[in-house]
Amino acid sequence: GLREFCESLHPATVAEALDDDFTPEQVWEAISHADIRTQASVFEYLPPARQVEMIEKARPQVGQLLGKMSHDDRVDLVRRLPEDVHEKLLRLVDEADRRDIATLGQYGADTVGAMMTTDYAWLPGTLTAAEAIDQLRQQAPDRETIYYVYVLDEAARKPDGTLAPRRLLGVVSLRDLILAPRHALIRDLMESEVEALRYDEDREAVAKLFARYDLIAVPVVDDRFGLLGIVTHDDVLDVVQAEATEDLQRQAGVGRIEGTYLEASFRQVWLSRAVWLVFLFLMQMVTINVMAHYEGKLDGGAGRPDGRGLAFLIVFIPLCLSVGGNAGSQASTLVTRALALEQIRARDWLRVFRRELLMALALAAALGVLSVARTYWFTPTDVLVKVPDDGFWSLVWVVTFSVMGICLTGALVGAMLPLGIKSIGWDPALMSGPLIATLSDVLGIIIYFSIIGLFF
Amino acid sequence: GLREFCESLHPATVAEALDDDFTPEQVWEAISHADIRTQASVFEYLPPARQVEMIEKARPQVGQLLGKMSHDDRVDLVRRLPEDVHEKLLRLVDEADRRDIATLGQYGADTVGAMMTTDYAWLPGTLTAAEAIDQLRQQAPDRETIYYVYVLDEAARKPDGTLAPRRLLGVVSLRDLILAPRHALIRDLMESEVEALRYDEDREAVAKLFARYDLIAVPVVDDRFGLLGIVTHDDVLDVVQAEATEDLQRQAGVGRIEGTYLEASFRQVWLSRAVWLVFLFLMQMVTINVMAHYEGKLDGGAGRPDGRGLAFLIVFIPLCLSVGGNAGSQASTLVTRALALEQIRARDWLRVFRRELLMALALAAALGVLSVARTYWFTPTDVLVKVPDDGFWSLVWVVTFSVMGICLTGALVGAMLPLGIKSIGWDPALMSGPLIATLSDVLGIIIYFSIIGLFF
Ligand SMILES: [Mg+2]
Ligand SMILES: [Mg+2]
Ligand SMILES: [Mg+2]
Ligand SMILES: [Mg+2]
Ligand SMILES: [Mg+2]
Ligand SMILES: [Mg+2]
Ligand SMILES: [Mg+2]
Ligand SMILES: [Mg+2]
Ligand SMILES: [Mg+2]
Ligand SMILES: [Mg+2]
Ligand SMILES: [Mg+2]
Ligand SMILES: [Mg+2]
Ligand SMILES: [Mg+2]
Repeated sequence: GLREFCESLHPATVAEALDDDFTPEQVWEAISHADIRTQASVFEYLPPARQVEMIEKARPQVGQLLGKMSHDDRVDLVRRLPEDVHEKLLRLVDEADRRDIATLGQYGADTVGAMMTTDYAWLPGTLTAAEAIDQLRQQAPDRETIYYVYVLDEAARKPDGTLAPRRLLGVVSLRDLILAPRHALIRDLMESEVEALRYDEDREAVAKLFARYDLIAVPVVDDRFGLLGIVTHDDVLDVVQAEATEDLQRQAGVGRIEGTYLEASFRQVWLSRAVWLVFLFLMQMVTINVMAHYEGKLDGGAGRPDGRGLAFLIVFIPLCLSVGGNAGSQASTLVTRALALEQIRARDWLRVFRRELLMALALAAALGVLSVARTYWFTPTDVLVKVPDDGFWSLVWVVTFSVMGICLTGALVGAMLPLGIKSIGWDPALMSGPLIATLSDVLGIIIYFSIIGLFF
Repeated sequence: GLREFCESLHPATVAEALDDDFTPEQVWEAISHADIRTQASVFEYLPPARQVEMIEKARPQVGQLLGKMSHDDRVDLVRRLPEDVHEKLLRLVDEADRRDIATLGQYGADTVGAMMTTDYAWLPGTLTAAEAIDQLRQQAPDRETIYYVYVLDEAARKPDGTLAPRRLLGVVSLRDLILAPRHALIRDLMESEVEALRYDEDREAVAKLFARYDLIAVPVVDDRFGLLGIVTHDDVLDVVQAEATEDLQRQAGVGRIEGTYLEASFRQVWLSRAVWLVFLFLMQMVTINVMAHYEGKLDGGAGRPDGRGLAFLIVFIPLCLSVGGNAGSQASTLVTRALALEQIRARDWLRVFRRELLMALALAAALGVLSVARTYWFTPTDVLVKVPDDGFWSLVWVVTFSVMGICLTGALVGAMLPLGIKSIGWDPALMSGPLIATLSDVLGIIIYFSIIGLFF
């Protein structure tokens, strides 16, 4: 029956089965056959928008259900609720949970604090291993994980008399507890060099710590090393995916979007795209002015001894601009990602510059050879008939040197721009991609027309 | 002393401290004070290139050290060794480990099999909870994790008489074992609806399963549900980062690169960039031909009643091309990422098309308004003096309709191209970014000159 369905399958599977075609009332009906703990786990796996709908059609059991939810998922839900539903809901949960929700709700978006949960397992250091396991047996049902147990100091008061969070003395894994002799004291078993995060660090710091130390959970502390909560591996995976999505979108000039492609609000997606399109459109005023400056020189053969114009040279403009854009976005993506993964820092700019200079020369060489061949054999006849009599080799060299110069400049600017943005403290992912596109257009035009000036 | 340094700190910290300025011999010397298990854990955290160096200067203890390494990290190392070192090394490890290395070494790159480790904890279903915990105490030191224990069937033989991998009957967490009554049987405690992966699936499947079910480890099975190994959460985090890096690079037209930005081989980076630059350069032959086709119409006023040329219109080409590139890369990035996260599938193309059509219209509207204002007030004087007397409003409308049309086309093509690529079974991340850049250039030129033809 429904009870078995809910209790024997993974809550994610149950949540998925209940997702698509049921009304909130039908979902409440379906899960109400399971015990309240199972209801809470299934509820946690429903998509956020669905959770809000469900709460709006809430039943009396909802207060109890919130009491059994993971504390991090619970506060994420409450944050999403409209003001009035929020108020009504808080009246249904008990005092301790209400205080927990308020505390977790105060951390800034994208901080470690906003990712953490307060339902961690902890013990005093004075217990023996056997006592500790007994205690964990009691705590287990309400804890996010019992595989890491945090060892905390005595409670102490802040200067203003309120209780401060207990100081984190160490951490012991359940594996070590099971391997230890029954009478060993926890404070002797625990690892006291604990890797911890401060509540106000950026959430990207979490991913780095987990990747480096292969942890299941990390403690989050205040500035006195008082334990505030933990961040668990599953939430880190979600953050890594979200950060990667954000960086991919930023590289393409798309602002932050909440929700999936098809579910995100039209207005928000429009805004996040329009802002960049408009910004880049305005930046292109520079290319218009640069083009206007040079255009007269090509036009109508003015000033040329043979009276023939050079307007045929415009056919190579898209090629030149595209070389700059491609070389620039390759370099800026490589450098931006290396900065994000902390493989390089802004102060490594000289090493990056040297490597990218060699690389850009080697890439320009390849394109140069190709460009000579291409212009020699494949220039369209429409264009050839307009080339001045002695101008064919000038044309070959103009295109080739432009392509090479633009490739070189694009790659170097693409590599240096993210380092510059990083060194003034901004996020290189945010600016590099779109900026490089426009910057390389401007440089491309200037280089192309300057080289034309040398040959014609 | 050194022994305490190695044994009291996290092996990742020790490995990092030993990394930079020491010779392989000095590192061997430093870690040799710790017990062999600690040596193995520190060794696992050294960067791959460093591990290979160390093995090349190997000491006799290296056979023993390999015996204590995680089985997945060990096979990754052996794969990297030059043939002769490889052979010499295998002679130092014992028979069982040698067979394990050979088995794990046979799985294809980027498959689930290549990520998995064989040092999982397992038990027969006939034990009680208390017996199980005792057994785990024995197994623990040599297992990657004991938090998930796999319950396996009796050994059976394949038709050819060799032993087949034992069938996976269920999984029980250490948490459940500790919570269970002492005499409960494992086969009653275990979860028998196990989420498992096949050894030959793509490694991207792992990330999805972990994200969905919040697991610490996932079993990997053959086609008879025989257990081959497990994949653990820490390796999944690394894969998610690597896949994100790959997708970012592909979006910018950079092939796969092994190692960090500064460490990767120059030749490999050059190749992975040159291939795309050359490909895109060749694709731009199309824009040259399209430009050559239209250029004659602008040139020298041929065929215009007032004899004045239209060459001034070329100043808006970079603007038009950039609008197409930006709108296209926004759309293709959003759709490619949504496909990668399985938020949409290729068969959702009609929904994507409809949404993107509305979005592109709304974006084009914004750019259109801006373009009228921009062309009206900010067209450079150099250009204005060349506009035919009755042509000013034609200029405004040419630029505006082109910008709008190109934005619309760019966004639609950008959204549809990844779906098309996906539906023929290729990776949309691989092709969409660079292709859209060139495609939108071609379309941009055609649209711009077609609209010129309507007004002038
Ligand atoms: Mg609770
Ligand atoms: Mg949860
Ligand atoms: Mg959360
Ligand atoms: Mg790691
Ligand atoms: Mg959580
Ligand atoms: Mg970021
Ligand atoms: Mg471009
Ligand atoms: Mg072993
Ligand atoms: Mg390991
Ligand atoms: Mg591995
Ligand atoms: Mg998850
Ligand atoms: Mg591993
Ligand atoms: Mg991929």
